[in-house]
Parts: sequence; structure tokens; C-alpha cells
Amino acid sequence: MATPSTAGRPTPERIFNALNAYQQTAALRTAIELDVFTAIGGGANTSATIATKTGTSEKGVRILCDYLTVQGFLTKEQGRYALTQESAIFLDRKSPACLASMAGFLGTERARSIFDSLTLAVRNGGSVWSEADNTKPHDDFWVAFARSMAPLTVPASEFIAALLRAEEGKPAKVLDIAAGHGMYGITVARKNPKAEIVALDWPAVLQVAQENARKFGVAERYSVRMGSAFDTDMGSGYDYVLLTNIFHHFAIPTCEKLMHRVHAALKPGGKAITLEFVPNEDRVTPPTAAAFSLIMLANTDAGDAYTFSEYEKMFRSAGFASVTLHPVPGMPQQVVVSEKSA
Amino acid sequence: MATPSTAGRPTPERIFNALNAYQQTAALRTAIELDVFTAIGGGANTSATIATKTGTSEKGVRILCDYLTVQGFLTKEQGRYALTQESAIFLDRKSPACLASMAGFLGTERARSIFDSLTLAVRNGGSVWSEADNTKPHDDFWVAFARSMAPLTVPASEFIAALLRAEEGKPAKVLDIAAGHGMYGITVARKNPKAEIVALDWPAVLQVAQENARKFGVAERYSVRMGSAFDTDMGSGYDYVLLTNIFHHFAIPTCEKLMHRVHAALKPGGKAITLEFVPNEDRVTPPTAAAFSLIMLANTDAGDAYTFSEYEKMFRSAGFASVTLHPVPGMPQQVVVSEKSA
Repeated sequence: MATPSTAGRPTPERIFNALNAYQQTAALRTAIELDVFTAIGGGANTSATIATKTGTSEKGVRILCDYLTVQGFLTKEQGRYALTQESAIFLDRKSPACLASMAGFLGTERARSIFDSLTLAVRNGGSVWSEADNTKPHDDFWVAFARSMAPLTVPASEFIAALLRAEEGKPAKVLDIAAGHGMYGITVARKNPKAEIVALDWPAVLQVAQENARKFGVAERYSVRMGSAFDTDMGSGYDYVLLTNIFHHFAIPTCEKLMHRVHAALKPGGKAITLEFVPNEDRVTPPTAAAFSLIMLANTDAGDAYTFSEYEKMFRSAGFASVTLHPVPGMPQQVVVSEKSA
Repeated sequence: MATPSTAGRPTPERIFNALNAYQQTAALRTAIELDVFTAIGGGANTSATIATKTGTSEKGVRILCDYLTVQGFLTKEQGRYALTQESAIFLDRKSPACLASMAGFLGTERARSIFDSLTLAVRNGGSVWSEADNTKPHDDFWVAFARSMAPLTVPASEFIAALLRAEEGKPAKVLDIAAGHGMYGITVARKNPKAEIVALDWPAVLQVAQENARKFGVAERYSVRMGSAFDTDMGSGYDYVLLTNIFHHFAIPTCEKLMHRVHAALKPGGKAITLEFVPNEDRVTPPTAAAFSLIMLANTDAGDAYTFSEYEKMFRSAGFASVTLHPVPGMPQQVVVSEKSA
């Protein structure tokens, strides 16, 4: 019985795997929920010992760990599992950089259900979700965001603090718009004992930011303004305005309106610091920033992942004198620095 | 303002992307539903022309096509999209090898909802889904399978027909167990005008197989037996018994029980032809076969993706004399050929 050869033909494997890709989300969420990474980090390395430590069946956890190995979250040698460097840093709850809380916001049932209407969103050019207009508070959504996503901000918030030369300790007045968990402003305040932070967001979300400000010992230099970034009095004379992950929710004219307000709130020579997913001009590279656009299509009525040339045009039309782009090392995000004339 | 450097640090991008991986499923399903691939295959190559052809918004389809480009289903050059070789073959409905119907079974709301209970399945060592015992008919599930998955069988069914030397045209009596769409047996019958096929499955599913037998002009040599592979009279004296994608639903003792019945139904020197996802002994390679195990954990009460050494042991304990493994070119599946002593 000969084995016929049909080598070199194209394969439907990519299609099969994409139609099953929701399983990657489920598997990682399950592994986080069962604390499999912490168990392995703590020394369990066979399916039997991991099962004992996580209160699961050996067969179930063996299949889960094999799947996590296929997906690059574990290694397996001679039947023994180990954490990858990434998993040890970001998924073991004993690690100070653990990001497991992200599963409270990313890939949740709510997040997934919004994608059930993706076809309508493509037809429509924007989300059909009833809360897709992000100019009104929807507390549970953004409080979940603030509570879940703070650890993910570490690389970008440290990068921003360094961009602001926070370590030099010069007096600085910083407005953090749509502060959420507040971690970007709080990190600047932690590194610069002369920085004063004003956080702007909805009241329920600001409670999370204030908790974090207390937790990190900067509450005394942390004040808040409650309301919408589009009509709340922001104050003025700021050295820096932080705009982290906000513009992607809105259409270009709405972004420009906010940029105008920011320009007015900055002192001469002040800088708007925008953290964003900024795809290249081709809009298909780099992968994570480019793919972010689809999340905005599904979740917002008019948002997008804007390119740098779009940001540059918007900031210049809002009166800014110079606009520069700074990739955040180790993260799929970029910082756009926009300077007001001195 | 210096750009601080923190290059070389590990990145949470893989975690972020896995928690968002369900979006890959949604995007491909939406693109298939809107027939974006057929539109591009038909000559539309800008977001404006694709939008017109698919009845969508330009912004929505631009974002979708950019995402599909990131995921490797399209290319984009100078703002113009094109199909990859894979997409042209497998996703354009004008292609005879189009697999778009797979979206009727893979990644459906039902398939996804089963993974909502993955954590329980890991705890339990098997699915908690009420229909996870695959020894009873559940018509809508398996009829959907039979109607959706037939095109995916082409490479493996042609491979199996070649393994059986169907082109030589020698008389052959073939039993196709859990025939589903029937395509494996039908392909043997198409290539060998002297082959007689007996298909065994639940009545509702066999209606699909019989439709396909008529469609491919082999109905005269196509008969059916309705019921369970575990207790229906199968007949005897078969040259070949086809067991395609069935064993993974069951525990080892259940598989062995079926293998015993198959052994009894074969004539001396007859062969059991098993098509399966067979991971390597490490259970973590190759990726698609290894990952298949998780699908069985979520969907079945006792199934798994078995390794070749497990298949060899099971077939030998059921009385087979030789057991050999044959990878299917261009597919993540393998064929296990088990021969009864002459």
C-alpha cells in the first residue's frame, strides 16, 4: 500500500485555525481562572501535580497545558511543563508584573458578544452596540477597564514618565484626560515629587484612580475633575496633558475638538502626550496596532486606529506646532508628542 | 525630549492577542458571510469597490480587509487588496475547492458557547455539555456538520482513495462508519466503479450522505445502515472499513470496543482506515493536531486526540496484525491503516 504524494499544495489549516481561534481566548482565560501559571511557577510540572494544585482533573489539565504549549505560553520537555519567560513575568500571580487581571476586561463574555454583531458593524461602518457613543458614562464597562488593565500600563507609563523627564523633579502640572485607573499620571507623580496631577474622568472611574493614587502614595498631589473631556472645565496652564487610549474611540472631527480644548489648556511650550495604537500608513503593519482598528469598529460608533499622518494633521489643525512619534519599547503602542508654541 | 530605551524586554503582546483571538473567528466568519473573498476574487480591490460589491460601508470593509491582511488571508499593496493563494482556492465561492461552508459548523455560536464551560471541562476531565456522550443521535449538530464540512474532506478523501488503490478498479466492499456527509466512501466509489459502499450513521445524517451519493453519481452502489456504530449490525466480509474522525469522540475502552466490531466485520486481510488528528508522542506537535485535543475536551465526555502509539495499542488489542501511520499531505490529519491477518 503506497502512500500517495500530493506535497506542496496549499492547505486550509489557517482557515481551520481562525474559525477555531476563539478557543485560544477560552483556554487562556481558563488557565488564568484556574491559576495554572501560578501553580507551574510554584513548582508543579506534571499534569498530575498541576491537577492537584489547581483542583482539576489530570486529563483536563494535561489537555489544557498541551494546548497552552502549542500556543507558546508553556514549554514541555519529557512530559514536564515549564513557564516561558513571558508567562513567568506576566501570568504568574506571584510576579509583580502579572497581567492576569486583564482577563477581567479582555475576552469577557461582554467583549465577545459585541463581536457577534461584527457583520452589522461592517455594513454600518460602526458599532451597532447601544453604548457605542463614548461621550456618556457607562460605569460598569469603564470601571471594569480601570480595575483590570492597570498592570498592562507599566511599560508605557514608565516610558511616558521618562519622556517627561520626571526623574529630574522639576515642578510640573499634569492633566490626565480619561484617566481610568490613573496609572499614567500616578507614575509621573511617583517619579517626580514636584508633579501635580489632575485626573479627568467619570465619577465612578475616578474612584478607582483615587484608590490607586492612595495606594502609590501620591494622593496629596492628585486631584480630580469629574465629567466629559468634551465639556468639563479642564483648568489651564498645564505643562503636560496625557491622552492615553482615548482618541481611538472617536471620529476625526471629535478628536480635533478635544485637541483644540487640550491646546487651550496647555501653557506655551506645553506638550500633549498621546498614547495610542498607531498603525503604519499601510494600516496593515505592525500587526497588533493594525488589528486594533477592528476592535474600534466593533465597539464604537465612529472610532478607529489612526495613522501618524492622521494624528499629525489633526494636532496641527488644532494649533500644535510640532508632532513627533515615539514607539514604546516592548509594547504594540506608540506615543505621539504634540507641542504648543512657546 | 529623549526617547528612553528599554529594548529587549519580554512583551505581553502574545497574551493581549490570545485574549482577543475570538476576533479572528468573528472577522473570518463576517468576511465569509459578506462574501468579501468572492468580491475580491471577482476584481474588486479597493475598499470602495469591495464595499459596493458587498453592500457594506467603505470604512467597515476597509477595517475588515486590513484585519484579514494582518491575519494572512489577503495581501495589500498600494491600498489595493488581493486574495492570497489559499484564499483564492478555499474562500472564493467561485473556486471548486471553496471551504466557506465550514463556517456553518466551525466557530458558530453553538460551538463557541460550548467553550464557555471550558473551565468546568478542565475540572471535570470532560465536557459538561448535555450532549457530550456521542453514542446517541443529536441530529441538528451532525446534520450541520455533514452539510458544512464536506468540502474540507477533498484532500483526505482523495488520499484515502489512493491508499485503497481505487483507480485500479478491483471489486471492493467498503463500510463507511459514521459516514456523515459520506464523502470518504463516495470518493472511493467515484474513483473505483467496482466499489460498493455501505454507510452507517444516524438516519437524519444519512439523508445528507445519500444526497451526496446521488450528486456524485454513485447512488446505485451506495447503501445505508441506520443506527449506532456500537450496536447496529454492520454486515461482514468488508475489504475496507473507513473510520474517519470518529475515535476522538470516545474513551480508549469505547474505541477498542468499536475496533473489535470492525475487526469482525472485515474479511481476512481487510483493512481499517482511520482518519484522525494524531499528535506526536509529545502531544504538543504538530500544532493543529495537538490543539485538537482541547476541542474534544470541551465537546465530549471522554474523547481525546490519541497518539499513534495509543492507536497502535488499541488496534492490536482488538486483534489487528499491523498498524501503520500515513500523514495526509497538505492537511493536519493522518491516516492509520490497520490490517487484519490474511
